[in-house]
Amino acid sequence: MKQKRYILPESEIPTQWYNIQADMVNKPQPMIHPGTKQPIKAEDLYPLFAEECARQEVNQTDRWIDIPEDVREKYAYYRCTPLVRAYGLEEALGTPAHIYFKNESVNPLGSHKLNSAIPQAYYCKQQGVTNVTTETGAGQWGAALSYAAKLYGLDCAVYQVKISYEQKPYRRSIMNVFDALVTPSPSMSTRAGKDILTADPNHQGSLGTAISEAVELAMTTPNCKYLLGSVLSHVCLHQTVIGLEAEKQMAMAGEYPDIVIGCFGGGSNFSGISFPFLRHNLLDGKKTRFIAAEPASCPKLTKGEFKYDFGDETGLTPLIPMFSLGHDFRPANIHAGGLRYHGAGAIVSQLLKDGLIEATDIRQLDSFAAGVLFARAEGIIPAPESCHAIAAAVNEANKCKESGEQKVILFNLSGHGLVDMSAYDQYISGTLANTGD
Amino acid sequence: MKQKRYILPESEIPTQWYNIQADMVNKPQPMIHPGTKQPIKAEDLYPLFAEECARQEVNQTDRWIDIPEDVREKYAYYRCTPLVRAYGLEEALGTPAHIYFKNESVNPLGSHKLNSAIPQAYYCKQQGVTNVTTETGAGQWGAALSYAAKLYGLDCAVYQVKISYEQKPYRRSIMNVFDALVTPSPSMSTRAGKDILTADPNHQGSLGTAISEAVELAMTTPNCKYLLGSVLSHVCLHQTVIGLEAEKQMAMAGEYPDIVIGCFGGGSNFSGISFPFLRHNLLDGKKTRFIAAEPASCPKLTKGEFKYDFGDETGLTPLIPMFSLGHDFRPANIHAGGLRYHGAGAIVSQLLKDGLIEATDIRQLDSFAAGVLFARAEGIIPAPESCHAIAAAVNEANKCKESGEQKVILFNLSGHGLVDMSAYDQYISGTLANTGD
Repeated sequence: MKQKRYILPESEIPTQWYNIQADMVNKPQPMIHPGTKQPIKAEDLYPLFAEECARQEVNQTDRWIDIPEDVREKYAYYRCTPLVRAYGLEEALGTPAHIYFKNESVNPLGSHKLNSAIPQAYYCKQQGVTNVTTETGAGQWGAALSYAAKLYGLDCAVYQVKISYEQKPYRRSIMNVFDALVTPSPSMSTRAGKDILTADPNHQGSLGTAISEAVELAMTTPNCKYLLGSVLSHVCLHQTVIGLEAEKQMAMAGEYPDIVIGCFGGGSNFSGISFPFLRHNLLDGKKTRFIAAEPASCPKLTKGEFKYDFGDETGLTPLIPMFSLGHDFRPANIHAGGLRYHGAGAIVSQLLKDGLIEATDIRQLDSFAAGVLFARAEGIIPAPESCHAIAAAVNEANKCKESGEQKVILFNLSGHGLVDMSAYDQYISGTLANTGD
Repeated sequence: MKQKRYILPESEIPTQWYNIQADMVNKPQPMIHPGTKQPIKAEDLYPLFAEECARQEVNQTDRWIDIPEDVREKYAYYRCTPLVRAYGLEEALGTPAHIYFKNESVNPLGSHKLNSAIPQAYYCKQQGVTNVTTETGAGQWGAALSYAAKLYGLDCAVYQVKISYEQKPYRRSIMNVFDALVTPSPSMSTRAGKDILTADPNHQGSLGTAISEAVELAMTTPNCKYLLGSVLSHVCLHQTVIGLEAEKQMAMAGEYPDIVIGCFGGGSNFSGISFPFLRHNLLDGKKTRFIAAEPASCPKLTKGEFKYDFGDETGLTPLIPMFSLGHDFRPANIHAGGLRYHGAGAIVSQLLKDGLIEATDIRQLDSFAAGVLFARAEGIIPAPESCHAIAAAVNEANKCKESGEQKVILFNLSGHGLVDMSAYDQYISGTLANTGD
């Protein structure tokens, strides 16, 4: 019987996260304080983030950072996740390529986001924080944090991008099961939200807007921290458990990826799957290609500008050195809510600037075409975000079909789409817009 | 680190299903042809079912039945499933009991139903069948069969119980992704449906009604077979992969269950988790208790009568020897659509009659209370059906708390509830009825 899934026991859950900054020749430039124009130090971030997360954020020297044992115990609720050989997809495409995917969708919260929600909630609890707040787009991060907060006995408030709140009501329901307070953003509950709604009462929301609201809540609530699900370097760090496991699992399969692909919103799952393999490009002369698949309607990597920009819409965050479409960019209402963000994290931006990774943009209809093809071949309905990675993998596999090359393609299946079925309904009925053309 | 999940490699996917009928002293009585009153032979079922399924249905002698290699390959898409120690739930309850669950919810279609959908579709394909049809309640079986049919290139038509079709629209969407034709039942597309709707235009549907429609479609369509997701002995047979894996995994944990629990609609997941352990009661003197957890609003095991009855509402099926509430029983509109069935399979019915298993009934609000408790402790939102098993496990764990006994409790988490969030919304907002009081 052909081996389909490569499974690691709990004992193989990584004991350390991989900090790629230590191995980068050109380090990411520091974040800048918008008032003082000085580089941000860890202490500057303490009011906003858990202190350990703030220290991880600016750590450019330690290659390996220990994962607390309690976090590993919580990871064991769903990790290690399987690496899967996509025989069904290969057959459907008729490609000589070997396609693998890391299946983060088996996580009971539905995506990779829990990999960072657990340690962030853990570090908050450790320093006596009682309340946490965040933004969420499609709701994957909000759902993950709601659960992580419940695990550690923290009160959790989530600002969900309004268009996603309406498109994906079940995600709000999931957060409610975990006792989180969910508010559609922009809302009248913050100064930032009020300003935005006053200027545009029909504003559909964006991650940038929701971040503004969550940051404001954290800054005006005692003993409350703000937690972010992507973009920041410590979030990408936590996500490296994905690639570290995949590295071992690819070895079990006796292969090494020629191409590694992740969908791209702010960078968390792309970084997670890529960085551990990228270190072998940086250190061991490997020549793997790394492709970030972003939506054509929000093309910060392929059409954005590298500059210092705010992480949120109203300018409450530090300035981040990143590829950006501008912090006031208003993305189209695509269903991949987790990819509707104007900028890219500092590490990924530097890597792209230095030509160490690539980016590609995917149109909405192409993403769903790939997603349905994948579902029928592999039995898993992918998240609209993940459909972008699948579409990029399909493109590369089709190139192999033309050239006859038997390349090894690995992509990250960041989440399942079972709570996004209205998007599939629209796609199948032919009413979905190809936003981004 | 305490071990949380017990994982088996693909090579440990069972090679044979366990046929408990071979080990029963009192065999289930045969099904009876309603016209001739003669016992049903395999050949009598050929018009309706795949021939191999018909043979398995009446096989009371072979203890082990080989799983085709192609079916094992498809099982490898999601099996072996994890056995999980519910430390979080134990802590939340403060019980000395050790609670384990077999996690069938990691299946990408969301439930254990694929375990039988794959072999049934395989056997149809093998004998040249081109079309399959079935009924579905909550949609777990319909979703599983839609995918299995797609895997084997079969056209699939599903009659979904109308109340579930409306309560759980995402399940229909999932079936549509796999190209199935989904019709709410009762419908005007069959004689049976027309008769029911003529008598009661507001009929909300039931599994019995939907079975009538699917059976009629199979009998009136060339080269079309009817496939059933529960009740029948060959379905229970296929589901024994659950318990066979769990047996090995409990041994990995160094424990053996004192109590095994499954929720109960027609018997498929309960049989799957129970029969492999029950064989050690039958053959090796073990004293494990087996508890079928049914909804209080559809209490065929606790309040039904053991008799020959039809499997469907209008009387198209053979007569089955079973505990039944009457084939025209109209269950309340509880959210656990998969449990809204009037009868129990012949094997389970005989086992209950002989005192080899037990049954308990759970009210809807108690089931959701247990489900939310479990979700917050373990991070998995369970299907409304599975909530009944959890509630029964919680009851047993609470008894251990009172008595101080450290019993080992194993239940089957038959599926996740991510497509059933409207039910959780109602529960959390306090508007859910305690139907069945």
